[in-house]
Amino acid sequence: MSRATLKDVAELAGVSSATVSYVLNGKRTISEDTKNRVYSAIEQLDYVPDLNARSLSMRDSKLIGVVVPQTEPGELLMFQNSFYSEALGSIEYYARQKGYHILISATDANESYLTLAKKRNLDGIIVIGMYPNEFYQQMKKTQIPIVLIDSYTNDHYYHNIRIDDAYGSYLATKHMLENGHRKIAFFAGQIKENGVMKKRLVGYRQALEEYDVAFDEKLIFEDRIDYESGIALAQRLISSGVEATGIIAAADILAIGAMKGLYDAGCRVPDDYSIIGFDDLEISKYLTPGLTTVKQQISLKGQRAVELLLKHIDEPNLPKQEEILPLELIERGSVKKL
Amino acid sequence: MSRATLKDVAELAGVSSATVSYVLNGKRTISEDTKNRVYSAIEQLDYVPDLNARSLSMRDSKLIGVVVPQTEPGELLMFQNSFYSEALGSIEYYARQKGYHILISATDANESYLTLAKKRNLDGIIVIGMYPNEFYQQMKKTQIPIVLIDSYTNDHYYHNIRIDDAYGSYLATKHMLENGHRKIAFFAGQIKENGVMKKRLVGYRQALEEYDVAFDEKLIFEDRIDYESGIALAQRLISSGVEATGIIAAADILAIGAMKGLYDAGCRVPDDYSIIGFDDLEISKYLTPGLTTVKQQISLKGQRAVELLLKHIDEPNLPKQEEILPLELIERGSVKKL
Repeated sequence: MSRATLKDVAELAGVSSATVSYVLNGKRTISEDTKNRVYSAIEQLDYVPDLNARSLSMRDSKLIGVVVPQTEPGELLMFQNSFYSEALGSIEYYARQKGYHILISATDANESYLTLAKKRNLDGIIVIGMYPNEFYQQMKKTQIPIVLIDSYTNDHYYHNIRIDDAYGSYLATKHMLENGHRKIAFFAGQIKENGVMKKRLVGYRQALEEYDVAFDEKLIFEDRIDYESGIALAQRLISSGVEATGIIAAADILAIGAMKGLYDAGCRVPDDYSIIGFDDLEISKYLTPGLTTVKQQISLKGQRAVELLLKHIDEPNLPKQEEILPLELIERGSVKKL
Repeated sequence: MSRATLKDVAELAGVSSATVSYVLNGKRTISEDTKNRVYSAIEQLDYVPDLNARSLSMRDSKLIGVVVPQTEPGELLMFQNSFYSEALGSIEYYARQKGYHILISATDANESYLTLAKKRNLDGIIVIGMYPNEFYQQMKKTQIPIVLIDSYTNDHYYHNIRIDDAYGSYLATKHMLENGHRKIAFFAGQIKENGVMKKRLVGYRQALEEYDVAFDEKLIFEDRIDYESGIALAQRLISSGVEATGIIAAADILAIGAMKGLYDAGCRVPDDYSIIGFDDLEISKYLTPGLTTVKQQISLKGQRAVELLLKHIDEPNLPKQEEILPLELIERGSVKKL
């Protein structure tokens, strides 16, 4: 690829190289006439600024890093849960509208994300999901704008985009109660202090209280947040002998696995068990019956994360922002009125 | 971020900057003693080469572009079909093992991919899916290694990773025939000359011929390759009054939509209709019943694409390569023996 240089543009336009730079980066006021000559030279020469070179002098690479969890350290990115691909698709789209490109990468044992951010001179980073504490400690050292999606990390360095998790599972549980269910199991990932699952459990308990239904520890089932765990939890519920007519799953992927586990055990949804998920994944409406669930606007999460990140890039002193996005219950066919 | 420079490393190691470069890029033989001094200086100073700067001098950015179709021009990337996110997850993983990062982006009206490739100084590009002819004409101008996944573009500039599409639908149709079905509908995306759908139709016809079943144009249903089209095709099949006991869907996402369309119309799979898909998406086993399908190893496609691309980057004169990956039928619960 032989390509025109900034100098070629300057020569053809009859101005200095510095003037061409000023026109390109908009950092000084240049007369309309000069601007027009520069733009016409750029067009004639089919000049494309080298962003790699540009980033050296201007300290912006027009590159946003997106961190997605891995299935296991050193393994594939977690795209089996389509929550992540839906969020990524949205981030790519909104970043593209503003002239930014997306670098996706996991963090690996042999290269810290800190090193990657330096190497690539990232303008900003969007982190999806929760990570060990050390990760957040390390990420701060990049000193670049970072937006977290779905994290409860309490650190003023980071912006946050998230939902009201307790309110979401409150909505789901209330809907189950309104349909006459009183024995309601709760399927969750690992319930840790300050974690997302703990918040969702709180909402479940709030709704039970409101309906004067006693909380029963035996109805709480914990595993990981993936499809296989959903199957396993359904099997555990059935073999436990604990009576239940409804299931609140703390994630759609768990509900989807549970529906499969129930089906394989000869139980029907919603005839034998009603079930409500949390997320509204694209695939949740593919199921038969469709999954009633708490919709979080995954695409909106991506959009708001990009907007907030670019705002911080523009305003380096922007104080920490937190945005709580709205939730709603989507009724499909997985809940039966008792 | 105050950071150590190449010069700092050279000073501490007591060698020239050029020597440090040689050690880093491995392009000249340097004595073990000198190497050790340089590495020790790098460690002491926590020196990280700036890849943006490096790419200017060394012409490699360690960056691979991945092109994924958009839902519509200017719209979101096509991650609703989890084929793309599964492929991307694999590409990211295998590239990461070799020290490459992944830049994902669609092409937009306001910026051609050619411009993007120049701007980012991409080392190579992986293109997933089929695009209009002009796209391939334009992409060649980048003059950088490009691997196509799932394209039948007949251009010697490009490497190809694909499957034997005709053989895949032959396998599916044969399985349906072996189970006693004779009235078998074919659900497809748009069937175009030289297109993937056309090849899959060929395999369907081959199997019918082998079993002396006459081909019937009325059993062929065309739409787009997405979930909504699958629903629509099931409705068209039912309302057409054409008799059928089995459906060969040319993509899992179509089969998944069809199962939903059948369910909503009060038909059961496999009791009323047997159905076989093509892809083996992660989500296809989530369904109830699980979808019997032709498994293509999506992750292997990503892996082989990365390997081939890096091979070409290492050997600039590598002639065009084509790799046809194996297929197999995965039996689940969506086919009934008649």
